[in-house]
Amino acid sequence: MGNCMDGIRNSCDRQKNTNIKSSLPAVCFVWQLSMIILFGVFVRYNVESDTHWVEHKKKDNITSDIENDFYFRYPSFQDVHVMIFVGFGFLMTFLKRYSFGAVGFNFLVAAFGIQWALLMQGWFHSLDYNDGKIKIGIENLINADFCVAGCLIAYGALLGKVSPVQLLVMTLFGVTLFAVEEYIILNILHAKDAGGSMVIHTFGAYYGLSISWVLYRPDLDKSKHLNGSVYHSDVFAMIGTLFLWMFWPSFNSAIADHGDGQHRAAINTYLALASTVLTTVAMSSLFEKTGKLDMVHIQNSTLAGGVAVGTAAEFMLSPYGSLIVGFFCGIISTLGYIFFSPFLEEKLKIQDTCGIHNLHAMPGVLGGIVGAISAAAATKTVYGDEGLVNTFDFKGSFANRVPTIQGGYQAAGLCVALCFGIGGGILVGLVLKLPIWGDPADENCYDDEIYWEVPEDEEILEHNTDTSL
Amino acid sequence: MGNCMDGIRNSCDRQKNTNIKSSLPAVCFVWQLSMIILFGVFVRYNVESDTHWVEHKKKDNITSDIENDFYFRYPSFQDVHVMIFVGFGFLMTFLKRYSFGAVGFNFLVAAFGIQWALLMQGWFHSLDYNDGKIKIGIENLINADFCVAGCLIAYGALLGKVSPVQLLVMTLFGVTLFAVEEYIILNILHAKDAGGSMVIHTFGAYYGLSISWVLYRPDLDKSKHLNGSVYHSDVFAMIGTLFLWMFWPSFNSAIADHGDGQHRAAINTYLALASTVLTTVAMSSLFEKTGKLDMVHIQNSTLAGGVAVGTAAEFMLSPYGSLIVGFFCGIISTLGYIFFSPFLEEKLKIQDTCGIHNLHAMPGVLGGIVGAISAAAATKTVYGDEGLVNTFDFKGSFANRVPTIQGGYQAAGLCVALCFGIGGGILVGLVLKLPIWGDPADENCYDDEIYWEVPEDEEILEHNTDTSL
Amino acid sequence: MGNCMDGIRNSCDRQKNTNIKSSLPAVCFVWQLSMIILFGVFVRYNVESDTHWVEHKKKDNITSDIENDFYFRYPSFQDVHVMIFVGFGFLMTFLKRYSFGAVGFNFLVAAFGIQWALLMQGWFHSLDYNDGKIKIGIENLINADFCVAGCLIAYGALLGKVSPVQLLVMTLFGVTLFAVEEYIILNILHAKDAGGSMVIHTFGAYYGLSISWVLYRPDLDKSKHLNGSVYHSDVFAMIGTLFLWMFWPSFNSAIADHGDGQHRAAINTYLALASTVLTTVAMSSLFEKTGKLDMVHIQNSTLAGGVAVGTAAEFMLSPYGSLIVGFFCGIISTLGYIFFSPFLEEKLKIQDTCGIHNLHAMPGVLGGIVGAISAAAATKTVYGDEGLVNTFDFKGSFANRVPTIQGGYQAAGLCVALCFGIGGGILVGLVLKLPIWGDPADENCYDDEIYWEVPEDEEILEHNTDTSL
Repeated sequence: MGNCMDGIRNSCDRQKNTNIKSSLPAVCFVWQLSMIILFGVFVRYNVESDTHWVEHKKKDNITSDIENDFYFRYPSFQDVHVMIFVGFGFLMTFLKRYSFGAVGFNFLVAAFGIQWALLMQGWFHSLDYNDGKIKIGIENLINADFCVAGCLIAYGALLGKVSPVQLLVMTLFGVTLFAVEEYIILNILHAKDAGGSMVIHTFGAYYGLSISWVLYRPDLDKSKHLNGSVYHSDVFAMIGTLFLWMFWPSFNSAIADHGDGQHRAAINTYLALASTVLTTVAMSSLFEKTGKLDMVHIQNSTLAGGVAVGTAAEFMLSPYGSLIVGFFCGIISTLGYIFFSPFLEEKLKIQDTCGIHNLHAMPGVLGGIVGAISAAAATKTVYGDEGLVNTFDFKGSFANRVPTIQGGYQAAGLCVALCFGIGGGILVGLVLKLPIWGDPADENCYDDEIYWEVPEDEEILEHNTDTSL
Repeated sequence: MGNCMDGIRNSCDRQKNTNIKSSLPAVCFVWQLSMIILFGVFVRYNVESDTHWVEHKKKDNITSDIENDFYFRYPSFQDVHVMIFVGFGFLMTFLKRYSFGAVGFNFLVAAFGIQWALLMQGWFHSLDYNDGKIKIGIENLINADFCVAGCLIAYGALLGKVSPVQLLVMTLFGVTLFAVEEYIILNILHAKDAGGSMVIHTFGAYYGLSISWVLYRPDLDKSKHLNGSVYHSDVFAMIGTLFLWMFWPSFNSAIADHGDGQHRAAINTYLALASTVLTTVAMSSLFEKTGKLDMVHIQNSTLAGGVAVGTAAEFMLSPYGSLIVGFFCGIISTLGYIFFSPFLEEKLKIQDTCGIHNLHAMPGVLGGIVGAISAAAATKTVYGDEGLVNTFDFKGSFANRVPTIQGGYQAAGLCVALCFGIGGGILVGLVLKLPIWGDPADENCYDDEIYWEVPEDEEILEHNTDTSL
Repeated sequence: MGNCMDGIRNSCDRQKNTNIKSSLPAVCFVWQLSMIILFGVFVRYNVESDTHWVEHKKKDNITSDIENDFYFRYPSFQDVHVMIFVGFGFLMTFLKRYSFGAVGFNFLVAAFGIQWALLMQGWFHSLDYNDGKIKIGIENLINADFCVAGCLIAYGALLGKVSPVQLLVMTLFGVTLFAVEEYIILNILHAKDAGGSMVIHTFGAYYGLSISWVLYRPDLDKSKHLNGSVYHSDVFAMIGTLFLWMFWPSFNSAIADHGDGQHRAAINTYLALASTVLTTVAMSSLFEKTGKLDMVHIQNSTLAGGVAVGTAAEFMLSPYGSLIVGFFCGIISTLGYIFFSPFLEEKLKIQDTCGIHNLHAMPGVLGGIVGAISAAAATKTVYGDEGLVNTFDFKGSFANRVPTIQGGYQAAGLCVALCFGIGGGILVGLVLKLPIWGDPADENCYDDEIYWEVPEDEEILEHNTDTSL
């Protein structure tokens, strides 16, 4: 084993310098210090998380602490938090020798990203113009987690082929692009996107795919033997799958309107996801020789319904509408893994480790379309007079907007997400192509040995042999 | 390895056709399409998840969105959801080569079952007679998860010995039987069963055991070498155990009365489960040669207290009462694994893979009895005048019922659960005995190779050997 | 394998008797029976979990069930529960052959400890002087979980070197000491410690380290080959890490003041933990040869920020203040693993299996200091008149206290925690040194074989070899 590791180390020294001893600590320290300074200048508690809440309550005749937004959103926030760190992290542990990188770099990227997101989103959405400070509360924490989800989706395309420094750079730019894109879609276009089909999934997926396209590795076959799973790594990945699947109703309802908005978003997501599982299993079985199931599909395509119902989750999509969305997503996503992923790699030169095109890109676009159609089809009969205004926020400068127009703006929002994803991804991909980031050689991709101290698993077998003598 | 797989495939071709390439996709598609049509005809949002909530609030003088049932039950719902998908799923991953089937088929069964349960339970409990529609909200989602729990318990007895198609058929009938049984127990008999000791656990366990009895395999020893755990599969199973154990207070309190009902149910369950752990450890140690602990007991019997306190959880069982229930459950359940399971297999011809008789059947019956006794013993001194009426719902046509009579109806409820479980299980078992469902041959039981594309774990060792040269 | 196990058994018989067949069941039964009796005498539901709640509501003009404390704290409670059982349990599964002991004994210790804690803390905090009963509700359950956390931290130092009976004795005394220490700090000194930097982490860590010091094993090198991880055991440990990390905001906010208190505690913890991840990664990379990351640091030091922000989490620490706390904790904790742990073992003769000195002791003390400083620096300008009184509870007999004095009492609280931890640990260590507890011989440390029936992992490989012929 000693020889083996020396062998790998020598061979990679010959070709690529993956030593990140100076770059990784430097980047982490500089960025964390910058965060502290920027937070010191800009970020304060909002009225509901500040000790002045007690006075605010009296002034506004709020009779109970339970009216604090914390109690409306905290349970959903914690579920979203689990999706970001355990869900995304463990979903990517399926590779036989990249589980440390999957769960560890996911952790690093998310922890950095949420801080930067609080600032970027704060400037756009939570700036108090009286004192120039960003005022944060529980909703900001949820939005920061959402923002980071976009970058973690992108990581799925790059898994195993980039260095942690590249991931941090990708996240810095990704969060920035996200905040601008989100501002355009939600505030300028006034599109609705509670679960982020467009803002999070479409953007994140095309951002990652575009970067992967720029970073195309023609000789990636050299590490083909590591681009696969072992039995227990597939079980680990199911932890990620299930926590994503179970908590997705919280994801889509976390920042929806208080009351019926959150309630309905949870129901719609629950139903869409249930439907997706059945069609995923059906398609997976249909395209294998003896009807066996493929873990790749079960781990990923079962989640597509949650992506696709994101935008419309708080609309009156109706229960059967949610089932229909889930139905098609399971089919499309599984077909994507079977037919489209190989095509993407061979013809379009996009190497997509986790198949985010099938899990996030296609279902995200579908979700944007479903959102546009269901917004355009909204009527006062179905929503009620007040319900329509509340659901689509036809207030203030948008008081005159009608559903059909709203549908158009929803569609425009989808285009913005696509443009930011593809355009941003290409630009950031070019930055990441610079030969300074310590990325692995082709034969060392998908291998934790490069960036982690990996324990020697053989020892235990040897020991057993020893003691049994 | 190639030879090995071919070998398995040939041998199973000779004896049993486990090809489910046509049946599994067909069943999934037909059922999912049926769900869409039935949901389209029957299912709508209820008043709290509909956009008309805003008008409803005004009409009913509800001052705050926080009064929406969503905020009373959503945290418990998500915990229950985790129990269903991660809890049940991972608890069954203990087998060395059936973890995919455990967690994957659990996923499939539950995703189908919750849809069918929303319909079946909806017709009985949530039908709006004005428009003939089922109106769903968060409580329906919880009840659907509960309903599916019955079928997942049954799966525990069948684990490794049935095909996914059989599981889906078992679920279709199981959910149907459950909904009828639940209606009789809760509505006609007006028995209380917040945590489902009778409705869920007793029914589910005897349903599964009866099916297993009908499907008895005399030559199951042929796959004996796979009916056991390896080190890491036992650790995976502990994920299931712990999430079930931790979230059981949410399970038993999820649909209890707002306020003190939910509060008390959580406390009682917390205490019963804590007590069970100590007596399980004690019994496990007592019956092994040198006092060693057996993982099977720790994984399963520690949960028996949650089952047994289900019915009485919302009653004034009192904290020490909960501890006593847990105390005996740990003992009974562990003794069941040590003495009763072998007896069950050898004498009664019931092969119970996960030992659901010890975890669900006996504790479930015990829970029904505890519920009947504590209901019969309820007094106005302990409960208060209003408290007694509230807790047992002595209202409307049940306004004249007194605790002693209620105790009798509780006992009757337990009998109904037993009858439906045993009777239903035998009938469904006969259906599943038909030679059309693609079940595995005796020598292929407990083996993921039959229904899953399984990665070849040796490769990594070979690779290490290669590179170390 | 048969030979191997016999070999181990013989060798340990020669040296140490690890047979716990009489002691473990005896201790479990006696203690559980005592719990039942004591609960029967002392413990009742409090007004919010009793059926009299309905009358209480009317009397106090409470308009809605949602005002029940259950709805303020239950989501946080469940998160804390996950931290105790899955978080602590899985964090310790990193050893290659002690995962059963890690997760299983953690389970046993916690299940016993929470019952004893309900009594001990109840006598000090929830005793109703009218009837001499302890009245429990959701806050008591959270506090019991907190109390047990102290003992589980101590277990981290002892992991693999003690018997389950020793752990139970350690817990019995630990919970008792905790309750007294907590009463002195929170009630007599009136120090604030929402997240327990002092009460839980400082106490627990020094308690465990002192016990470990008394139980020093000079020949522990004999089991050195088992004191390390394998690839998948490190992935299992990340489950523990992440659930601790994600739910720490709930831990620090669970018993904070309703409204802004809980809200602010969650935000501060979220930020401190994010910051810690970046500096942990930076330091880990900086001190390894080629900048590789060490899983030990990622698993543990990333959590230090949550520990250190515990006391001050509900104060107006401000967002950048939280980031600064996290920044230094990641550095200190990682340096602790690299430099201080070896020093501790070689010079101070403290064998600290999980490095709790780096994760809990140093950050806990730091947290106490941060708490004292930020309390002393509190002003009416920042907090508001009412906010200051609310946050520090300057009411009743403490109405005259001012922030600077409060700072002094906070510091005194830290000293009390240290004294109880070190003093109590030495005394309990001496008790545990008695040769009656069945602890393992030096060569059998870190080995599940001693206390668990361990499955034989080789079988599966043998089987594969057989069938491939």
